[in-house]
Amino acid sequence: MTDRRPIGVFDSGIGGLTVVKAIRDRLPNESILYLGDTARVPYGTKSKETVVRYSVNAAEALLSRGVKMLVIACNTASASALPEVIDHAGGVPVIGVVEGGVAAALKATDGRVGVIGTESTVRSGAYEKGIDAGRKGITVVSRPCPLFVGLAEEGWSDNEVALATAHRYLDGLTGQIDTLVLGCTHYPVLKPVIAKVMGPGVKLIDSGEETAQVVERRLAEYGLATTADRAGRVECLVTDSPERSLALARRLLGAEVAIDSCSLIDISPFAG
Amino acid sequence: MTDRRPIGVFDSGIGGLTVVKAIRDRLPNESILYLGDTARVPYGTKSKETVVRYSVNAAEALLSRGVKMLVIACNTASASALPEVIDHAGGVPVIGVVEGGVAAALKATDGRVGVIGTESTVRSGAYEKGIDAGRKGITVVSRPCPLFVGLAEEGWSDNEVALATAHRYLDGLTGQIDTLVLGCTHYPVLKPVIAKVMGPGVKLIDSGEETAQVVERRLAEYGLATTADRAGRVECLVTDSPERSLALARRLLGAEVAIDSCSLIDISPFAG
Repeated sequence: MTDRRPIGVFDSGIGGLTVVKAIRDRLPNESILYLGDTARVPYGTKSKETVVRYSVNAAEALLSRGVKMLVIACNTASASALPEVIDHAGGVPVIGVVEGGVAAALKATDGRVGVIGTESTVRSGAYEKGIDAGRKGITVVSRPCPLFVGLAEEGWSDNEVALATAHRYLDGLTGQIDTLVLGCTHYPVLKPVIAKVMGPGVKLIDSGEETAQVVERRLAEYGLATTADRAGRVECLVTDSPERSLALARRLLGAEVAIDSCSLIDISPFAG
Repeated sequence: MTDRRPIGVFDSGIGGLTVVKAIRDRLPNESILYLGDTARVPYGTKSKETVVRYSVNAAEALLSRGVKMLVIACNTASASALPEVIDHAGGVPVIGVVEGGVAAALKATDGRVGVIGTESTVRSGAYEKGIDAGRKGITVVSRPCPLFVGLAEEGWSDNEVALATAHRYLDGLTGQIDTLVLGCTHYPVLKPVIAKVMGPGVKLIDSGEETAQVVERRLAEYGLATTADRAGRVECLVTDSPERSLALARRLLGAEVAIDSCSLIDISPFAG
């Protein structure tokens, strides 16, 4: 059995390419169709209702293009819109990054987990619920870090501004936790400075890597994996300016993900 | 003659309330209908085409509610979409904040002007063109300061992160200019730290204040001013979460603008 249809991956913007990179590293022969809703980015500062509406728009755009699986590579959308996306997916398997982050945190922790993410992700309580469902008795402390997105997009991943910001957000967590979930796809870019502030005793969880493992497992379970023996393609769709999106992708990821094409689409003809 | 219809003011989000405050201070008896496109904020990182589409949506929503004048209280939208908004305004006068900022800079400068704003405002070159049209021979240096918006929204207007960020963005301008235009409605919130970095020799221009003067003049010219002898109302429309918008307004402005109502609307039924 082989299934050459692409895996659909979406995010509010370009940050989800960190998840694409993790899937590529693990499953190089799978093709990926990525959608970044760059005309309406960010989702993390918006209400649950708006995040649900935008996420369903994005999912439908990918489903209409024949993807075999949907990966929500945005913590905000995973935390707030997973049930609604599943409802619209017509049986196509849906994986959210929160699931990967929760699984990795449960493996890593000795009992005290920190979660950092957007305001909307933290408000949803999705990580707390997921961790509690996985194992009882773990303490979870969450903290929104909205400026980290801007820092990552500016490419300021390890300068004095990034360090001062990390201290402001994270000083209250040091000594309180043994594991910290980077619950936003932009945050792995800031790993150096986050690690510096948290110290060597705290494990940092990048939910993208664990999500790639879940994708691999789920493809096998559903008999959806490709048996192609050459590299898959990575095609990008964005809702605003492909040029700016590619420039931002380079700033966030360097040359770590090769993108074969990037095109503009409109995903919301009937609802803004 | 009296005209009690409200003045329509729009912005990508909540920052334009700094302009509402300036209009209120000068024209307390005028009513204002404010629209913040909080479901799609920010505009400043998006393409010209997208900014034009969103701005026309916002203008039409206000025009359909019978405003007597349109104020574009967003530098990005003023810089990129003024002609298109005028085209859709059917004769209703349209004033953009860039016009106010240019006028104020021309009054203040001895010949060397700095402009800070969003990536999109800087890319548009709108301030350079406006200043050059007003007086020849003035040197204009522009610089995008994207993180300032996040800092203002976080309420970090005068801490060590704001100071380090201001140094990163502005150190290259010190000694080069005599006047600095705060070309984004969020930036006046950061005035203390910007003043600290630029030093006492540089005049800071808040385009909102000058825009309020232009509004007053234009109302008189068109015979549109109210003669009501009691305070006008300030009604807000937002495209996402009135609660969050009001909370953010309080964080940005304190109690400086009294808002009489805040309601949710959808401004883009046919284009997202």
